[in-house]
Amino acid sequence: MSAQLRRVLLGGGGLARSAGRRRTAAPAVNACAASGRCSMPLAATASAAVGPWRSGRRGNANAVPPLTAERYPIQRGDFAEVTDEDLAFFKSVLPEADVLVADDAEGGGLEAFNVDWLGTVRGRSRVVLRPRTTEQVSQVMRHCHQRKLAVCPQGGNTGLVGGSVPVFDEVVISTNKMNTIIDIDDYTGIMTCEAGCVLEQVDAKLAEKGLRMPLDLGAKGSCQLGGNVATNAGGLRLLRYGSLHGTVIGAEFVLADGTIVDTLSKMRKDNTGSYLRQLVIGSEGTLGLITKLAIACPPLPKSENVAFLACSSFAAVLNLFKEAKANLGEILSAYEFLDSECVSVLGKWTGVSSPLESEAPFYVLIETAGSDAAHDEEKLHRFLEQTMENGLVDDGTVASEPSKIRAIWDVRERITEALKHDGYVYKYDISLPLPKLYDVVEDTRKRFQGDDGVTRVVGFGHMGDGNLHLNITGPEYKKDVMDSLEPWLWEWTSNVRGSISAEHGIGFKKRDVIGFSKTAEAVELMATLKKTMDPQGILNPYKMVQVPGGP
Amino acid sequence: MSAQLRRVLLGGGGLARSAGRRRTAAPAVNACAASGRCSMPLAATASAAVGPWRSGRRGNANAVPPLTAERYPIQRGDFAEVTDEDLAFFKSVLPEADVLVADDAEGGGLEAFNVDWLGTVRGRSRVVLRPRTTEQVSQVMRHCHQRKLAVCPQGGNTGLVGGSVPVFDEVVISTNKMNTIIDIDDYTGIMTCEAGCVLEQVDAKLAEKGLRMPLDLGAKGSCQLGGNVATNAGGLRLLRYGSLHGTVIGAEFVLADGTIVDTLSKMRKDNTGSYLRQLVIGSEGTLGLITKLAIACPPLPKSENVAFLACSSFAAVLNLFKEAKANLGEILSAYEFLDSECVSVLGKWTGVSSPLESEAPFYVLIETAGSDAAHDEEKLHRFLEQTMENGLVDDGTVASEPSKIRAIWDVRERITEALKHDGYVYKYDISLPLPKLYDVVEDTRKRFQGDDGVTRVVGFGHMGDGNLHLNITGPEYKKDVMDSLEPWLWEWTSNVRGSISAEHGIGFKKRDVIGFSKTAEAVELMATLKKTMDPQGILNPYKMVQVPGGP
Repeated sequence: MSAQLRRVLLGGGGLARSAGRRRTAAPAVNACAASGRCSMPLAATASAAVGPWRSGRRGNANAVPPLTAERYPIQRGDFAEVTDEDLAFFKSVLPEADVLVADDAEGGGLEAFNVDWLGTVRGRSRVVLRPRTTEQVSQVMRHCHQRKLAVCPQGGNTGLVGGSVPVFDEVVISTNKMNTIIDIDDYTGIMTCEAGCVLEQVDAKLAEKGLRMPLDLGAKGSCQLGGNVATNAGGLRLLRYGSLHGTVIGAEFVLADGTIVDTLSKMRKDNTGSYLRQLVIGSEGTLGLITKLAIACPPLPKSENVAFLACSSFAAVLNLFKEAKANLGEILSAYEFLDSECVSVLGKWTGVSSPLESEAPFYVLIETAGSDAAHDEEKLHRFLEQTMENGLVDDGTVASEPSKIRAIWDVRERITEALKHDGYVYKYDISLPLPKLYDVVEDTRKRFQGDDGVTRVVGFGHMGDGNLHLNITGPEYKKDVMDSLEPWLWEWTSNVRGSISAEHGIGFKKRDVIGFSKTAEAVELMATLKKTMDPQGILNPYKMVQVPGGP
Repeated sequence: MSAQLRRVLLGGGGLARSAGRRRTAAPAVNACAASGRCSMPLAATASAAVGPWRSGRRGNANAVPPLTAERYPIQRGDFAEVTDEDLAFFKSVLPEADVLVADDAEGGGLEAFNVDWLGTVRGRSRVVLRPRTTEQVSQVMRHCHQRKLAVCPQGGNTGLVGGSVPVFDEVVISTNKMNTIIDIDDYTGIMTCEAGCVLEQVDAKLAEKGLRMPLDLGAKGSCQLGGNVATNAGGLRLLRYGSLHGTVIGAEFVLADGTIVDTLSKMRKDNTGSYLRQLVIGSEGTLGLITKLAIACPPLPKSENVAFLACSSFAAVLNLFKEAKANLGEILSAYEFLDSECVSVLGKWTGVSSPLESEAPFYVLIETAGSDAAHDEEKLHRFLEQTMENGLVDDGTVASEPSKIRAIWDVRERITEALKHDGYVYKYDISLPLPKLYDVVEDTRKRFQGDDGVTRVVGFGHMGDGNLHLNITGPEYKKDVMDSLEPWLWEWTSNVRGSISAEHGIGFKKRDVIGFSKTAEAVELMATLKKTMDPQGILNPYKMVQVPGGP
């Protein structure tokens, strides 16, 4: 073993200087943006400083944002308005306590359901329904379909593209009260639950049985599985366990007209129309409202390690990924990267610093998760020895102890928080072919060289999934910066066949730029499906895809 | 280490007696049924002995089966018939050599495209088209849509439910000539190819780059990826890598009217309408014809081991599975089981015998695949030591050497071949909750106790996926045996919420029993999608789902 590697393995890289925030101790409301695992979407107008409106961190905290209807150039669809008769009907189906009615026509008192977590969009729904059963959802939907009342399905309201809150006065159907874990099959690891179960709570229950969710994201403390599946949430574990399209093996959902479609198979292999359940994975509540799910859950790893490594070039970061896949194989569970500018901004605004003494243009965080601590460590150390010898890695540190693991994750997770201190953040969540992943960061830097409106351009993200979080900061929002970013960045992404939304989805905010990632024919097929499955267009209107002539 | 375990690890169980057939050396045409990895479906009428009609193994080999139109009570849909003008059009789009025309009205000369591999169904298509480009597929489909000509998309024609051949005179669109691997991304492991690429050939190309397909099945020598994806093929590696719904990350397909829908993203995370591509996964060519695919391919394992173990009860088989998942964790790649009756029939008709000296009611085959031989062996040995000590395993043998691994796989794979020697085989491919998996075998035995029409009832299968291959043999086909099996078995399966088709799909043969695994509402939604996406009903008619009033 080289002296350099020995130093790395002994943790000589100043790890103790890192802050010790618990990785999974996400705030109850929403930790997604704060964690930096999923970046925030672009705020569409200048007025909203990026940040949770309920957090109290910023001057305008707790001040509700302007109504979406006033901020965006969008017309209300030709839907009915909720009448007292409708309310009476809802109260005949649900307990009165589960029919929440607003104080005023602007949805006063229902802000928790009308405003998104980022505080960038605000509907004015005057009624929130909290059904407890699928049958209740069905009765409510049938009524809304007959009355042509628009509906906004809502889970934990942790979405980042304005998909989970009403745009106008849509009836909110919250899955908050549908939170029973129905079954965890000891043999198959298949977990069946209602749509409103909170990710972190399910994960904790699974851990008792030696299992884990195949999904992990910063908002785990409040996001709900129904919403996760509806938005095809990505997150950290995708590299290891794949997307929800593969791990969700059954779903029960309610169509716009109230029809209950039960494809809640618990069979890993059920080849009798497996594409049906897929319709509600990633269609963001526009084709059906998910009421129950069956998810294949992998065994809980018995050992976890994290390495934080310095690379002298992005080419090294790329090749190191290849080596990690080949050598760590089945135990590789995360491969994240950040550039030196991320470490600078962390150093400037937070108590978090790199665990390494030396500086480098790029840093990589590798996580392993396996069933044997000794084997995993041996694989990791061998991999590090090789990659240090062949020059891919210049310096590094490895942690196996939970507190040190958390300290390293902090470096990756607190970037978003640090960036906010710069002032305004223009945030993008895109996928790119790996060799191009950093080109866009450099091109963005060139674009704003000498521009006073931009303080810094940083790149970090889920490298293993080709998912870049590109962030541009400035002292304040500037329209000319935004105009220089868009559509230039969408075009850049489209030219290399990347995705303009890697994991956050389309929602309300990206509906009109979907064409940069989908062909006209694909968008037309989406519209055809929508029109067929929801002829009145009542399910989550103004989101995902526009039906020609529709709202 | 116990003396017993030492004996097991030293291969004391008579492994040398096993035949040494190469596991991957599937015959060029089709090895699916012969390999036993996927069992054959029920022959719908008495006349067809189960077995490949082209194989020459049986007396009636090379005799084409009767026309489906004559054997089954099914009416031809209201489609146009192919005229000379149509042929002229096809020849204007494709090279003449790629427009194959039959010798007669019964499809003479085109048997390879008209008859399924099992020799149980036979169409009478008079024209087979072999486009080379997506644009050609589009032009052909547009024409067929305008003319209301029915179409049967066909890949390797290895399907087992009559889904891949015409029922009447549908135009066959073969993907045989669309077999280019477009790209293998070194960094991400994402492989992009045309739909007609043969699974085994792709796997071999991937191996050169240290990758593998996330799919493996007996027919790999001739099945094509387009067909695999269209039928959501399951196979052996599903336990490890999940279903194609997760691993297929992009698809290009042609709709019934010729529209090309390109969702061929190579991004692991692309959340801009991810449900679109899912429509062609498992819809068996009824919603669109797949022309290109992007598939996420995992690293090729560096080490493989196989254990063959004896268990004294099905409860032990069940608990052993739980232990295997917990202790082998990320390296567990197959968990197959067979009962003692399988070993009996192997002994009676083939040269293959159990590698163990002792007899047991149940046998389990466990495969591990990982990145470090020493680590994998250590995990496997520790697991065996534990499970022998706690009595779950009574005897066993382990192989790490390729020839010995193949010999053990033979025991599992040659069951289907052995069963055929009994005479007629009633074959079922179902999924059941694991604790119920063997109950149905025992119930079937009870049902036929003392019945001369039944020689034996055996159970084996992909235990790790809850996938049972239930096989009943008799000297010859008997209607009363069949009447006693169906719908009894479908009801049995439905009562425990199992699947009547674990991995083979619905195709032509199971369309009318889909209701045992899907609710009326789910089937109606399938019909609605079909009607919307293919209003003329020309794409693979008579298969998957019946549109009310349609053929």
